[in-house]
Amino acid sequence: MEIIEAVRWAPGGNAVRIIDQRRLPAELVTLDIATVEDLCDAISTLAVRGAPAIGVAAAMGLAAVMTPYRSEPAKAFDARLRESATRIRSARPTAVNLAWAVDRALAAAAGVEDPAEVVDLLVLEADRILEEDRRMCRQIGEHGLPLLPDGTRVLTHCNAGALATAGIGTALAPIYLAAEAGRRIEVFVDETRPLMQGSRLTAWELARAGIPVTLLTDGMAASLMRAGRIDCCIVGADRIAVNGDVANKIGTYGVAVSAKHHGIPMYVAAPTSTIDSATRSGDEIEIEQRARGEVAGAIAVPDAVRVYNPAFDITPAALVTAIVTDTGIHRAPYALENMSLEGSHA
Amino acid sequence: MEIIEAVRWAPGGNAVRIIDQRRLPAELVTLDIATVEDLCDAISTLAVRGAPAIGVAAAMGLAAVMTPYRSEPAKAFDARLRESATRIRSARPTAVNLAWAVDRALAAAAGVEDPAEVVDLLVLEADRILEEDRRMCRQIGEHGLPLLPDGTRVLTHCNAGALATAGIGTALAPIYLAAEAGRRIEVFVDETRPLMQGSRLTAWELARAGIPVTLLTDGMAASLMRAGRIDCCIVGADRIAVNGDVANKIGTYGVAVSAKHHGIPMYVAAPTSTIDSATRSGDEIEIEQRARGEVAGAIAVPDAVRVYNPAFDITPAALVTAIVTDTGIHRAPYALENMSLEGSHA
Repeated sequence: MEIIEAVRWAPGGNAVRIIDQRRLPAELVTLDIATVEDLCDAISTLAVRGAPAIGVAAAMGLAAVMTPYRSEPAKAFDARLRESATRIRSARPTAVNLAWAVDRALAAAAGVEDPAEVVDLLVLEADRILEEDRRMCRQIGEHGLPLLPDGTRVLTHCNAGALATAGIGTALAPIYLAAEAGRRIEVFVDETRPLMQGSRLTAWELARAGIPVTLLTDGMAASLMRAGRIDCCIVGADRIAVNGDVANKIGTYGVAVSAKHHGIPMYVAAPTSTIDSATRSGDEIEIEQRARGEVAGAIAVPDAVRVYNPAFDITPAALVTAIVTDTGIHRAPYALENMSLEGSHA
Repeated sequence: MEIIEAVRWAPGGNAVRIIDQRRLPAELVTLDIATVEDLCDAISTLAVRGAPAIGVAAAMGLAAVMTPYRSEPAKAFDARLRESATRIRSARPTAVNLAWAVDRALAAAAGVEDPAEVVDLLVLEADRILEEDRRMCRQIGEHGLPLLPDGTRVLTHCNAGALATAGIGTALAPIYLAAEAGRRIEVFVDETRPLMQGSRLTAWELARAGIPVTLLTDGMAASLMRAGRIDCCIVGADRIAVNGDVANKIGTYGVAVSAKHHGIPMYVAAPTSTIDSATRSGDEIEIEQRARGEVAGAIAVPDAVRVYNPAFDITPAALVTAIVTDTGIHRAPYALENMSLEGSHA
């Protein structure tokens, strides 16, 4: 099975190679990134997207950017490193993994003066972050594997797949491992308006891996459930409160309500780093309202028509059957206070 | 308040004037139709759409088409009338109101030989069908009016508005009358993927009437309900079974499930002619699967990705709070056997 790699080293290791997600699904194009300009551009224009993938790309990108300067005088090198780190950190201000990864890379080389040694440490730390991300995905997949017996028909929403990580994804990780184990798994994908991550990304990466996949509009999911054609739902998460409330892409809550109505399990699969120990419940999570044009853009909707366009919604823990993380399967009553990785949401 | 008229006579009465819905919401263009070619083209390309509007346009169109031939010899006139009727009837084969309206117009002139007299009878019958449709809309509106007190925030799906009828619509009729009565009504409109009737048509006609309207993607409705921002839902119907099961635009069922979960009333508003006495329950209604391109068209989705694209879904009577028709408000247990208008689904 071919599971795509959204972020990896280019051959030779002097650049980070990403799949340009702006051009999916029309064409599969990779970008080799070795300058600050290219890295910031790739992050800010969503050529690379998904919190884990952004973090990995930033750490690897910083190492690649600094590699040509390993023989530069220490003072000039250090100034260049600080400036590069600052620019990368601010390429997408709301992406917590971005700042976290850059800071972690800098910390790994803290106190070291020799540029060549700093470069080696940056590369080493980027490698660690990359490998941790891959391992995290695989662990989510393994913990979720028992939820997907042979013949399971899964509904998913948005993209929490390989394209959002450096590994095999979060919500899609158990699906990939089940298919790899020879189980027949069929996936139904909400197109996920307004930004169509389901159509553009999830359907594409699953089809590429040879997994049977069916695309539907968001309003069709309930009728599939009523027809008895869905066995379980698996989605990712943007943030999980310690009471088990889940913030995820808008539309997730509607899937959860329908799943509950039809007695279908609703699983959330996400890295432990998604659990925010500072957030007691979903009520505390502020929901970003996004641009009017995302909903009203393609059609000449009159100015008098208002637009409701929240980036995500909150699914209360009561509608979540289980949360699958890299550490295991968690079920209500949730006690997630001590689960979040220290520093991951710094 | 300006409620648009989707189908009416052109000044002078020699053509039927329709709003060209293919060009909405970018521009408001009307077409004056007086030939069979133009009428069939308008119906088949959805320049006029919505079962009631199609029926009215067909009857008026047939009268307009035949008017210039009132002095033709009887035999030639009769042949022309039969041929025109046959072509109009088949402009959109699945539209039952189309065949029903054409047959009714022909029946009104049956046995009459004088072409001038036949034309007068065709015009008279088309006028009757037009007026009945307008009256039907207004009666639905009046029966639904008590459901919408001052300050009501309504969610609707697809377009069951003035653009789908010759009058003030079906699902939107109570909204127009409540607004006309000075009540503050706010409408939230699902965009209604894949064909976007909510964005293109419902948002447009409500905004034009000066009613506050907010557009959302289909996956956002549940989160609005959870936020306590929806007081009731009103949708139209394509067909109603005698047990109260409702076939309507795909996505309606998901709205009903969410409404139930949040304790929000779910109303269906439709003409009595929508009740099909030959259909005992929704299980008997065959659901048309539509073209792949409607879901996968705008995005280069790989061929390996299948598409699920049903035209409508079934909302079981248990999720419907009440059905509003031109004869009154009906609540469970439904006994709709004797409600359907004779001949309306011939």
